[in-house]
Amino acid sequence: MKALISLSGGMDSATVLGLAISKGIECTGIGFAYGSKHSIYELEMAQKLCLHYQIPFKIINLVTAMRDFKSALLISGDDIPEGHYEHESMKQTIVPCRNMIFVSILAGLAESIEAEEIHLGIHAGDHAIYPDCRPEFLGSINSTVNFATEGKVHIEAPFLAMNKGGILSAGLALGVPYHLTRTCYKNQEVACGKCGSCQERLEAFKSLNKTDPIEYEKV
Amino acid sequence: MKALISLSGGMDSATVLGLAISKGIECTGIGFAYGSKHSIYELEMAQKLCLHYQIPFKIINLVTAMRDFKSALLISGDDIPEGHYEHESMKQTIVPCRNMIFVSILAGLAESIEAEEIHLGIHAGDHAIYPDCRPEFLGSINSTVNFATEGKVHIEAPFLAMNKGGILSAGLALGVPYHLTRTCYKNQEVACGKCGSCQERLEAFKSLNKTDPIEYEKV
Repeated sequence: MKALISLSGGMDSATVLGLAISKGIECTGIGFAYGSKHSIYELEMAQKLCLHYQIPFKIINLVTAMRDFKSALLISGDDIPEGHYEHESMKQTIVPCRNMIFVSILAGLAESIEAEEIHLGIHAGDHAIYPDCRPEFLGSINSTVNFATEGKVHIEAPFLAMNKGGILSAGLALGVPYHLTRTCYKNQEVACGKCGSCQERLEAFKSLNKTDPIEYEKV
Repeated sequence: MKALISLSGGMDSATVLGLAISKGIECTGIGFAYGSKHSIYELEMAQKLCLHYQIPFKIINLVTAMRDFKSALLISGDDIPEGHYEHESMKQTIVPCRNMIFVSILAGLAESIEAEEIHLGIHAGDHAIYPDCRPEFLGSINSTVNFATEGKVHIEAPFLAMNKGGILSAGLALGVPYHLTRTCYKNQEVACGKCGSCQERLEAFKSLNKTDPIEYEKV
């Protein structure tokens, strides 16, 4: 079995990769450059993770293709909001149809190189804010991929119904190297600890009484 | 009403644009550079068509993003097969998930600029060979776009059930400038007249007892 693993540099997709490796799947890690503020940091982490697991890593460049997209997450956008994910302000971090675009390209690439699966790290914590992380979206795009590839490619999202604490718990058992991940949305090397993404990560570690191995900005 | 019109430089998408203009829709033409052999010619035609209708034209660059895709249509691929569309060999011209990728990017861009519609020129003549031109694919990706954009964007494919003769008939009535279109799959300025795409175009003109206004290679 061959699979493309969509890697964001964060802990969810890292755990998806760790799980796929543990099942003996032949994995290729794929990172996307799409003009996000934290792009160089997330791609560096995704690459380090692939080196750790000794698998190929490819970067797909969508910077010019998505240059007119509107989102606070992008270089062209407003400031990243601070506060918890449940806050209305976090909707500014939606990148319209991002997962749809990533999955479409992964599906075409998978068919081209005869990989059967695309693995995604979407999870329950993303459902409220991000429309293209919800179960109904995943079901629909899985059908679309099935039609487009005549059944040759399908999507796996093992953590779709799980929260970040559950993912972390699974990943610690699998030995996922969380020191090689980064979750912050801001354009800075050291994680801010204040954006919704950082807060959700810190809460996951706290819920398991574990210490996050990465560095955070001092306040 | 604002719409993004996906333009391939060919007669079907030109007719889709002519129809949208006739309905008073505010159109933006979008061309995709994705490494096809006929890329410069099709983008030039799409641009000329937009100049004709005095609407904006944008090119979305996917050349590096799709560089590892496998298809005879791509610069990296084998020779374009000659012969009719119904021939098995034409399957070599499938670019895996091409329409899925284009629609995904169009949906994200549409949401970003507050356009409600994406217009596609897919039609009945494409159904046999191209999985991502079939009605079941269109229904599925329309649902996926609906979920991803929370209902803000949808797809229009006015010629989904029509053949090329019907499209041409509609376009002639609308005054679509077919001399500003190009259908050939080959990497040459003058259309070959022999690939499946050229043959289907010539048959459409013949079925209406009309002369195709573009030049063809002499044999």
